[in-house]
Amino acid sequence: MKASIVGASGYAGEELIRLLHRHPNVEIAHLTSERHTGETLSALYPHLMNIYDNELESMEDVRRIAAGSDVLFIALPHGHAMKIAKSVSDLPLRIIDLGADYRFADTSVYEAWYHVEHIDAGADRAYGLAELYREQVRRARIIGNAGCYTTASILALAPLVKALLVKSDSILVDAVSGVSGAGRAPKESTHYPEFYDSFTAYGAVSHRHTPEIEQALADAGGAAVTINFTPHLAPISRGILATCYATLREGVTPEQVDEAFGAMYADEFFIRLRGRGAYPATKYVRGTNYCDLAWHIDPRTRRVIVFSAIDNLVKGAAGQAVQNMNIAFGLDERAGLDLVPMYP
Amino acid sequence: MKASIVGASGYAGEELIRLLHRHPNVEIAHLTSERHTGETLSALYPHLMNIYDNELESMEDVRRIAAGSDVLFIALPHGHAMKIAKSVSDLPLRIIDLGADYRFADTSVYEAWYHVEHIDAGADRAYGLAELYREQVRRARIIGNAGCYTTASILALAPLVKALLVKSDSILVDAVSGVSGAGRAPKESTHYPEFYDSFTAYGAVSHRHTPEIEQALADAGGAAVTINFTPHLAPISRGILATCYATLREGVTPEQVDEAFGAMYADEFFIRLRGRGAYPATKYVRGTNYCDLAWHIDPRTRRVIVFSAIDNLVKGAAGQAVQNMNIAFGLDERAGLDLVPMYP
Amino acid sequence: MKASIVGASGYAGEELIRLLHRHPNVEIAHLTSERHTGETLSALYPHLMNIYDNELESMEDVRRIAAGSDVLFIALPHGHAMKIAKSVSDLPLRIIDLGADYRFADTSVYEAWYHVEHIDAGADRAYGLAELYREQVRRARIIGNAGCYTTASILALAPLVKALLVKSDSILVDAVSGVSGAGRAPKESTHYPEFYDSFTAYGAVSHRHTPEIEQALADAGGAAVTINFTPHLAPISRGILATCYATLREGVTPEQVDEAFGAMYADEFFIRLRGRGAYPATKYVRGTNYCDLAWHIDPRTRRVIVFSAIDNLVKGAAGQAVQNMNIAFGLDERAGLDLVPMYP
Amino acid sequence: MKASIVGASGYAGEELIRLLHRHPNVEIAHLTSERHTGETLSALYPHLMNIYDNELESMEDVRRIAAGSDVLFIALPHGHAMKIAKSVSDLPLRIIDLGADYRFADTSVYEAWYHVEHIDAGADRAYGLAELYREQVRRARIIGNAGCYTTASILALAPLVKALLVKSDSILVDAVSGVSGAGRAPKESTHYPEFYDSFTAYGAVSHRHTPEIEQALADAGGAAVTINFTPHLAPISRGILATCYATLREGVTPEQVDEAFGAMYADEFFIRLRGRGAYPATKYVRGTNYCDLAWHIDPRTRRVIVFSAIDNLVKGAAGQAVQNMNIAFGLDERAGLDLVPMYP
Repeated sequence: MKASIVGASGYAGEELIRLLHRHPNVEIAHLTSERHTGETLSALYPHLMNIYDNELESMEDVRRIAAGSDVLFIALPHGHAMKIAKSVSDLPLRIIDLGADYRFADTSVYEAWYHVEHIDAGADRAYGLAELYREQVRRARIIGNAGCYTTASILALAPLVKALLVKSDSILVDAVSGVSGAGRAPKESTHYPEFYDSFTAYGAVSHRHTPEIEQALADAGGAAVTINFTPHLAPISRGILATCYATLREGVTPEQVDEAFGAMYADEFFIRLRGRGAYPATKYVRGTNYCDLAWHIDPRTRRVIVFSAIDNLVKGAAGQAVQNMNIAFGLDERAGLDLVPMYP
Repeated sequence: MKASIVGASGYAGEELIRLLHRHPNVEIAHLTSERHTGETLSALYPHLMNIYDNELESMEDVRRIAAGSDVLFIALPHGHAMKIAKSVSDLPLRIIDLGADYRFADTSVYEAWYHVEHIDAGADRAYGLAELYREQVRRARIIGNAGCYTTASILALAPLVKALLVKSDSILVDAVSGVSGAGRAPKESTHYPEFYDSFTAYGAVSHRHTPEIEQALADAGGAAVTINFTPHLAPISRGILATCYATLREGVTPEQVDEAFGAMYADEFFIRLRGRGAYPATKYVRGTNYCDLAWHIDPRTRRVIVFSAIDNLVKGAAGQAVQNMNIAFGLDERAGLDLVPMYP
Repeated sequence: MKASIVGASGYAGEELIRLLHRHPNVEIAHLTSERHTGETLSALYPHLMNIYDNELESMEDVRRIAAGSDVLFIALPHGHAMKIAKSVSDLPLRIIDLGADYRFADTSVYEAWYHVEHIDAGADRAYGLAELYREQVRRARIIGNAGCYTTASILALAPLVKALLVKSDSILVDAVSGVSGAGRAPKESTHYPEFYDSFTAYGAVSHRHTPEIEQALADAGGAAVTINFTPHLAPISRGILATCYATLREGVTPEQVDEAFGAMYADEFFIRLRGRGAYPATKYVRGTNYCDLAWHIDPRTRRVIVFSAIDNLVKGAAGQAVQNMNIAFGLDERAGLDLVPMYP
Repeated sequence: MKASIVGASGYAGEELIRLLHRHPNVEIAHLTSERHTGETLSALYPHLMNIYDNELESMEDVRRIAAGSDVLFIALPHGHAMKIAKSVSDLPLRIIDLGADYRFADTSVYEAWYHVEHIDAGADRAYGLAELYREQVRRARIIGNAGCYTTASILALAPLVKALLVKSDSILVDAVSGVSGAGRAPKESTHYPEFYDSFTAYGAVSHRHTPEIEQALADAGGAAVTINFTPHLAPISRGILATCYATLREGVTPEQVDEAFGAMYADEFFIRLRGRGAYPATKYVRGTNYCDLAWHIDPRTRRVIVFSAIDNLVKGAAGQAVQNMNIAFGLDERAGLDLVPMYP
């Protein structure tokens, strides 16, 4: 199977290479970067010396690249993927977009939050969060890979919403990400001395992952949901911890909460249920496609608190993309993803 | 003025020394440590070489120490301060306890959360959060210095609760602390390689700062409040960021929220109002007694989100203690606390 | 092939599990820990949940464990391995000791630096640094896996010493290690708040890796060498950077230096020659068995400076052990070690 | 006394403000920044809110600024200070340049290493390292404040060189700096995710602090010295640890080494002699003007190893500048510099 990555020079692209490199069924065909066309990948990422010294190509002739690929991963800022996908819509390949273009069933939501006109609203697509949309992922031509915060948040809340255990207007997500989520371009706010020994929030009430979480929870629960989502940045490289709050409906017992998680995830390889009263840590999932979940119930306020930990670049981006590819191509869903966290 | 510190070898005690060292009105009389009696402080803390090479004493003869002090700071785990304070109740000095023993007006709350019998319920005491209890602090013999998370949380929420702008059952606090808050005793969970590049939560639904926040918000709003408080640990040394959520009552406008903060804090030296839409960072207050506040309002959910940043060892412990001492002794409240954050 | 690990609960043991888990030819038979006998590995290392939930055994009956193993890895403090190896000396298996017991050809050197009597001086053993002692590793019953600092230092200096390019009394190594090298037991010096934002040295003129480096350089150059070795601790989790200095003999040219590295390492998979003028970084080798080398020549002082970067837990411990095992058992030397660094 | 800072928006300028803010004899008159003219300092550095909200001026009319100042600190890249100083050479003020322009007695050395023509070779200037050049600093119009690495290195080696205890061709310095030394401008190499959990070297055999160290050691020992200097970057914010090596001359005893340090520094407030066998840490001096020194002697190689720790932004830049100012103006040398390290 031949895979190509459009936008290989960012962190998500580079992580895809790490994962595809050891995938038993995949050969990397093309890697593109407009800013670094003609350079080798290992010049940009010296850790890849002797591993990937391949040259980066331009995506100018993306039809040629697509024609030589069974699957095309697109790891570019929103707005680009829909142009690329449209331009190769006649070619027989699957497309997995790590950006936001194909995440929304209702493209008007996309347009409202991303301030861009959607030009491919009719595309055959699925929301790429396998645990909840596996069948759609299997069949769709284009997979809109779920976002990082959204993956952690949705996986935490979907069992509760689906089992109708929580009040739909009570949901909020307070989440923390490692700095790799901000991308590779240097900025003052992520300059080492500036961010070192600091902790702060950003994007309150306005972060674009909000409607994506709402869409999936509405799907799960069968009714619209409006939530708060507040992201923070911690001085770590990788990892997301989402702390999710909701108020239990009258009469719901702790055991029902436990059962809801078991019912949805008992057979899911990439979900590790740490159970009621436990505390996931980002380090326990670092470098892997796991999502670790634990929950607590407060009898005083009747709130349930779910902690959800993922690696933002794996289950939150490249790993999820590989998982989606595996499903789409009928491979073992775990192929290339049987990773052991690097510790400590 | 002579100040002594009982329990000087922990981080709060050591930070008190840093602050008292440059206080224009204070001379340090005695420093105690049971574990390190007879050692010099700079043997324990090599950074204090040539600054504080004084010997640590035992607190066995605490009456002698108290007799030679105008103010006694107690920086010990809960349960000790009430014994000490009681044993010197006849001596003319002020006591500032950095632990929990004297924080609660209703000692049954203390007993329920700390699982210890309170032996000094009738003590003449005040809750040591100056911005809200300044007059009480001025007069009380014993000051129960407010906790770290609680200081950040109460200062963030009190204006909203006092002005009756939020629904009292809608409040929750999601907070993050630097690791110095866990004290100086080495543990596996705070062993460098273990916690490096990690982020996790702890103490959900059970942290003892919960009732302390509830007490102060009840005082501010005139009615009982039940909240959720969820602490997290970030791989930084110092700092707390509290992200506080509450739902606005019907009809409350953003301007009313702005006014509530201005009304309460416009003249407070240690509160820096960064305003609506801003983002405090722990690094902006590092090493100082400031509490930085900013807030956001979500028109979709009608929630207000307040961010509150302090240095857990200063405004959350030693700085607040000095501020309380200044008030108690009629000094300039800022004496010894005109600190500039160390940056970067 | 069945492999067992005696002392599986430390960082080196745990890293061995990570590597053996994906080794195509190995099955883990037994894991021992005296302190945690009966506990599951994932209780100690929550990141291994669902990956290794196996129970830890006692090594009390080590003959039974050895009898059921083709290779026994020993990851214990020095002094234990020689007892274990001796007790199973009649059983047909290979032993790879990650400690110091079998590193020295002359056991009196071991005794002088480790202050322990050597009880197995006649054992059939090899020094486990494959790039320099591959044939010995292939044949020996016991392999004394090279130390972490020593691996980085020897690989950096051996080409220069072997080609007789440097003055033998001019060599010194200034090295920096991540904190995982200090082990998993919590100590005040490696307590998170203590070591955060700090940098310091330790073990000057006395570190036990000194004679190990001297032994290998003497082997390479055919004459005794006395060096200085100065270790430092940086606030990172993994990685060693050794900065090695030596003075060039009269008339030696930069090209001769380049050639010496090429001659020794051109065909070595795990050595990445970054060349003259480059700068390896610990992050470029993180999680892998690579040793990255680069060198600089100062025409003013005629010193050559070699930078050598490894991951202390992989090429400096567990990875090297697996490489040695592969050689000893006639497997592909890279089996289980085709790792891509996790970045960023 | 009125002080102005030309180039106030970098880390050194900002640190000067922190120190001058609490200096009992100084009032800040002007702060300049060309890139941020018209902005407030606290807009650039939010931690300074309510402390320094002053507006930044342009240095275009530097004569007006100089005319209103008793002392002018220049914190700009090399090449600018000599132009500024020359343009105000008729005005009665003292100039303290934190850059390299006035550090060299022999400006041809400056020109060779900095590749810039020196236009003010005849200026009345002193090398601003007070412990060694106090009298010159007292008298000179212009003070070329010593560099960061150089301060740590020279203070470590000068006693040995002055007392003729070491061989002059045996000296080398292996040093590590925190990332703040690289300045505030964001770069990929100091982008948080890139440098996190990494350690690397740079500037081998070519760093411009080399000739500065050589100049001071030549002054101290009365004979030219050629050294190696190798800088490294550690993932910490502040601090330099210099590990300095030299070979003892025949017959020199450890006690003579001890005496050399005592003889030079016993009365120096900012030098803390930790003694033979100790280990300074950057954290012990963080935020202060201290230089902590300790030394080790290897009887096997007859090398002496000196460890020297400073805060690169204080004793390595702004603190040293204030110390020089205090001397130049006849103030208490410690004024404004009686700082306690922030710990942990």
